[in-house]
Amino acid sequence: MTRAPAPPLHPITMDGDAVRILDQTRLPWSEAWLTLETCAQAAHAIRGMQVRGAPLIGATAAWGMALAMREDASDDHLANAAGELAATRPTAVNLAWALARMNTLLRPLSSSDRPAAANREARRICAEDARANAAIGQHGLELLRPLARAGRPLRLMTHCNAGILATTAHGTATAPIYAAHAAGLEVEVFVSETRPRNQGMLTAWELDRAGIPCALMADNASGHLLMSGEVDAVLVGADRIAANGDTANKVGTLLKALAAREAAVPFYVCAPVSTIDHATPGGASIPIEEREALEVLSIQGLTTHGTPATLSLRPGGDTSGIAASNPAFDVTPARFITAIITERGPLPPDGLSVLQR
Amino acid sequence: MTRAPAPPLHPITMDGDAVRILDQTRLPWSEAWLTLETCAQAAHAIRGMQVRGAPLIGATAAWGMALAMREDASDDHLANAAGELAATRPTAVNLAWALARMNTLLRPLSSSDRPAAANREARRICAEDARANAAIGQHGLELLRPLARAGRPLRLMTHCNAGILATTAHGTATAPIYAAHAAGLEVEVFVSETRPRNQGMLTAWELDRAGIPCALMADNASGHLLMSGEVDAVLVGADRIAANGDTANKVGTLLKALAAREAAVPFYVCAPVSTIDHATPGGASIPIEEREALEVLSIQGLTTHGTPATLSLRPGGDTSGIAASNPAFDVTPARFITAIITERGPLPPDGLSVLQR
Repeated sequence: MTRAPAPPLHPITMDGDAVRILDQTRLPWSEAWLTLETCAQAAHAIRGMQVRGAPLIGATAAWGMALAMREDASDDHLANAAGELAATRPTAVNLAWALARMNTLLRPLSSSDRPAAANREARRICAEDARANAAIGQHGLELLRPLARAGRPLRLMTHCNAGILATTAHGTATAPIYAAHAAGLEVEVFVSETRPRNQGMLTAWELDRAGIPCALMADNASGHLLMSGEVDAVLVGADRIAANGDTANKVGTLLKALAAREAAVPFYVCAPVSTIDHATPGGASIPIEEREALEVLSIQGLTTHGTPATLSLRPGGDTSGIAASNPAFDVTPARFITAIITERGPLPPDGLSVLQR
Repeated sequence: MTRAPAPPLHPITMDGDAVRILDQTRLPWSEAWLTLETCAQAAHAIRGMQVRGAPLIGATAAWGMALAMREDASDDHLANAAGELAATRPTAVNLAWALARMNTLLRPLSSSDRPAAANREARRICAEDARANAAIGQHGLELLRPLARAGRPLRLMTHCNAGILATTAHGTATAPIYAAHAAGLEVEVFVSETRPRNQGMLTAWELDRAGIPCALMADNASGHLLMSGEVDAVLVGADRIAANGDTANKVGTLLKALAAREAAVPFYVCAPVSTIDHATPGGASIPIEEREALEVLSIQGLTTHGTPATLSLRPGGDTSGIAASNPAFDVTPARFITAIITERGPLPPDGLSVLQR
């Protein structure tokens, strides 16, 4: 039994003037689409991770600004909207980048011109993201080709979801995977569960949907697989890349980078140049979001058989003694990164300043 | 409101002649005790991880042999029981060690002497484990004392459950923690969730029960915490230590060792000398158990809000396209280990041969 090819996936779409998003907190169990009608709804979608992934957060923020201009195109509302959207998530640079771009365009315009201009600019940001990711895919493919060995698939590992669902199209870390698959290279992908929010299942869902074989694994398994020679390359996305190449990405990325270096497996960061923050000198300056304890404690609420259970670490459900530590990102030092694959080609992590010339 | 001190915890106990175990698959939600009446029940408890942790597996296997001798003390049944118990889990050396010890004792005896002798030997194995762990605690405490800084608690990290629940008493990795707490040192413990089976919550449960502050974290967070200077020492257990000091422990241990080395944080393996397998030259010879895919795939069956949901990565629940990789252990090379803390004192990982002299 073969499945019909799935239609192309776009997690943010325009339906006439309406902005629609796929609610990613409900994937993979249900494909629920939401219509964003206000800037506040766009901010809520980013904060609540209904959209997630740096490029998609940027695109959604751009649409949030466009929605704000439909509500009220005054200077005050422009400033308020940008402030509301900027406060949703602290780490991803694309959010600040998209807001600055919208602001720079809109501020000089009259309030009557702002709504249409905002719409056009948001569309342009989405189209540019899709083009950049397609280029990342082709550049990545050229790096992956030499790693392929006759008689077995190319074995790749990824973390979190830097996939189509994190962008407007193609994904970033997944772009070379989709490009390799499209070019007829046989690939297999180890997908890390990515606790505490399990975004790995989004990656498994979209790879499976595209017919690419993948294996979910506990985050803990990456060291063993890398050190056992089971992996040809690691591909991850980025939430913010500092000027020196240090890269903030979903917590757990650093551990894979450490193991890849130990195992001499190439470790590629895939990201559009908009993710590079030349104003941040190094990883120590990147703020790391600490998310709520409940993300760690509540999902503990299963038996080891996977049946649901109410969290009750003490009789009566009193969990006051158990704290949680829940950093959402970590910083991978540039020295562990083989190359940063951008839409302009692969760059050595210590050579990002060429982009400013 | 203060809680009354909890009574001492013993996950395997004798109630007259009856062998009782705490069913750890139901913790922390319920404290369910099971009575083991047959060797087959002991084997089932080990295989199904109702008891887990290398020393407790060894103790349960010893009691399995004692129960087998009550059923039928013939040579044939002795051999069959040892075979059945040996086949339950492949990695922990304590299992083979306990079975060999029972066999060596029982084989020369007449079948009428075997039941009582088996009972005595199983009791002795449990008592020796408790004594060894108490000694590990004291030796570990001496290593931890110099790491304490005035004005803040000693910040420790552990993985999985190498706690009381993995042993007959005190735990191995937790023994220095309990010893430090008893000695009046202020300690705080980062406990790694330990996917896919979440044994970290067992550790949080038993530390909280003893009044020791702890914070659960996703396994992914360990790299960030270690590299950010948040941790003074890492303490883990071991399932098998090769002659060269390479150490097999719960999958994910290796990643913490890599990050600890990078951060120059001491990384201690805590284990009784019975965990050292002088017949295994190095880590490459340690078999790594691959457990069933469902452990990874089924626990994915939650929404990111923690509400339970049926796994359905494709419409209709067809998950045939999604595989899983589920190694239960990994091997930490000896060079990443600061010391192996045994009941005879801390040993450098490359100095284990002194134990054979």
